[in-house]
Amino acid sequence: MAQDQYKFVFTAKEAESEGVTEPFRLPNLITKAMSLARAPISRYKVGAVGRAPSGRIYLGVNVELPGLPLHHSIHAEQFLVTNLALNSEKGLHLLAVSISTDGNDFGAPCGNCRQFLMEMRNALDIQILLKSKHEEGSFRSLRFLLPDRFSPGSPLLLEKHDNCLTLSGSAGEICSSDCSHLKCKALAAANNSFSPYTNSPSGVALQDDDGKWYRGWYIESVASNPSLGPVQAALVDFVACGLGKGFDKIVEVVLVEKKNARVSQEGTAKMILDTIAAPNCDFKVFHCYEDLVKKMNYITIPEVENGKKGYLVRKIIRQ
Amino acid sequence: MAQDQYKFVFTAKEAESEGVTEPFRLPNLITKAMSLARAPISRYKVGAVGRAPSGRIYLGVNVELPGLPLHHSIHAEQFLVTNLALNSEKGLHLLAVSISTDGNDFGAPCGNCRQFLMEMRNALDIQILLKSKHEEGSFRSLRFLLPDRFSPGSPLLLEKHDNCLTLSGSAGEICSSDCSHLKCKALAAANNSFSPYTNSPSGVALQDDDGKWYRGWYIESVASNPSLGPVQAALVDFVACGLGKGFDKIVEVVLVEKKNARVSQEGTAKMILDTIAAPNCDFKVFHCYEDLVKKMNYITIPEVENGKKGYLVRKIIRQ
Ligand SMILES: [Zn+2]
Ligand SMILES: [Zn+2]
Ligand SMILES: [Zn+2]
Ligand SMILES: [Zn+2]
Repeated sequence: MAQDQYKFVFTAKEAESEGVTEPFRLPNLITKAMSLARAPISRYKVGAVGRAPSGRIYLGVNVELPGLPLHHSIHAEQFLVTNLALNSEKGLHLLAVSISTDGNDFGAPCGNCRQFLMEMRNALDIQILLKSKHEEGSFRSLRFLLPDRFSPGSPLLLEKHDNCLTLSGSAGEICSSDCSHLKCKALAAANNSFSPYTNSPSGVALQDDDGKWYRGWYIESVASNPSLGPVQAALVDFVACGLGKGFDKIVEVVLVEKKNARVSQEGTAKMILDTIAAPNCDFKVFHCYEDLVKKMNYITIPEVENGKKGYLVRKIIRQ
Repeated sequence: MAQDQYKFVFTAKEAESEGVTEPFRLPNLITKAMSLARAPISRYKVGAVGRAPSGRIYLGVNVELPGLPLHHSIHAEQFLVTNLALNSEKGLHLLAVSISTDGNDFGAPCGNCRQFLMEMRNALDIQILLKSKHEEGSFRSLRFLLPDRFSPGSPLLLEKHDNCLTLSGSAGEICSSDCSHLKCKALAAANNSFSPYTNSPSGVALQDDDGKWYRGWYIESVASNPSLGPVQAALVDFVACGLGKGFDKIVEVVLVEKKNARVSQEGTAKMILDTIAAPNCDFKVFHCYEDLVKKMNYITIPEVENGKKGYLVRKIIRQ
């Protein structure tokens, strides 16, 4: 199919048919990944291939936003992790990142991405391929690649949680799970947002010129700067599922965030969209707040996973 | 003196009188540094103390911009390196970064900063203090803390260079070295800008309500995202020399950058200033271009420094 060239997620079986039969074969998908990168500023396309615990294979690409400084851009590893989150994956086992333009060399992520990866449970055990042309290469763990690290606490990214947010006003709830309101999609996204350090969850939903919608949520890093904004996260969804469409096909965007949040995305989101989206793109912001009744229905229970103490959010059914 | 509490640069002698008599005594200045941090978002103040090859001691602090996402913020290590650049230092030998709120624990920089530090010559030999309360601690090199790294090429940050930029139009040159035009300060800053990867140098000059001016220039990272924008760099100068003034005392700003630069700072600069500067702050942008005649008067000569080949820009005097 024509749309196969835009594929960012492969089942184990599909990956096998692409030659990814074992860890050292992750590079078999790298040229596919690299061809999907969007690097109008650096002109340096980066691809990443990762395997989740589910067995599925994910691609990541770098995405640079033309007309904007580089600190707004998305690295291939951040793209891949965000796509794991959007697809409800629970972690990342293996990672291969291209470091040459011919796709023959693989190296460790930049410092920024090593820090970003730390937000996942068992991040230290992620195995990263180091390999140059004509050699099989070897895997190194993030534990080795980021010694004496600044580690996040708990909860962690990719763990199930719900921020229990509703919108202000009468129609505060998501009207139904399959409605077509961008506002409802953005609220659902904000409820998945990962902001344990500043408690400023936010979500973005955007729509293209064909009426197809995409969504993403703010992912915070304990080290602040590597944090990924909600527009960037939605752009990951757009690139991963938009079949190669340009950002100028984005015609409508909704941001949901808390009023007076410690981290406000509104100004930056507007500026990014003014620069990359369709000229007359409609941008709306809705403020949400924590539904305390809903929140009381959730409690945090210590849980043992892989021998380590962690915290998972559990829903308690009320009678 | 009252202004001593806002001191960010110490001569070797001044540092000695603060108790910094040897590397393990860098922590003696940490509470001073931490008290100068501006962390309205995370509320987590970080201080850094570093020694340059000149023997001078520099402080760094984290600076978060209220109302803006965290990827716009400045880490203490980035602050310190930017201040080295603003003071024409040639490198960094020693670094101590606080990792606890009481200033008793010191640790390695986050991944983002490890990557940013890489832009300096001999970065791998920077010695970083790891220490917890009641122990003397030990120094680890960046070489150890960032294995299998993504390294920049040449030229490097803190090496003398001149981007040979002039402004468009009749009055394209800096009118004199001690004039009071913000435009001239911003152009001089842009000429110091470090943008070897996208060739998009830029500089910012800003003025406070007392007519005092500050300046800073864009510093690019080979890994894109850790790059520091020119507004942020000018804010480093503002925090380091502004005697504790708030950002809302910034009343006039000039940005100089190339027209149609691959990395344009205008939109982001305007948004940042709209958010943090004085409400009626005047913001102007001037476009510059490379003066090819001036550029031909510069050539690059390989030079041996510390046994390693490097490149320094040398001026050839024309007859
Ligand atoms: Zn990276
Ligand atoms: Zn709805
Ligand atoms: Zn840092
Ligand atoms: Zn002048």
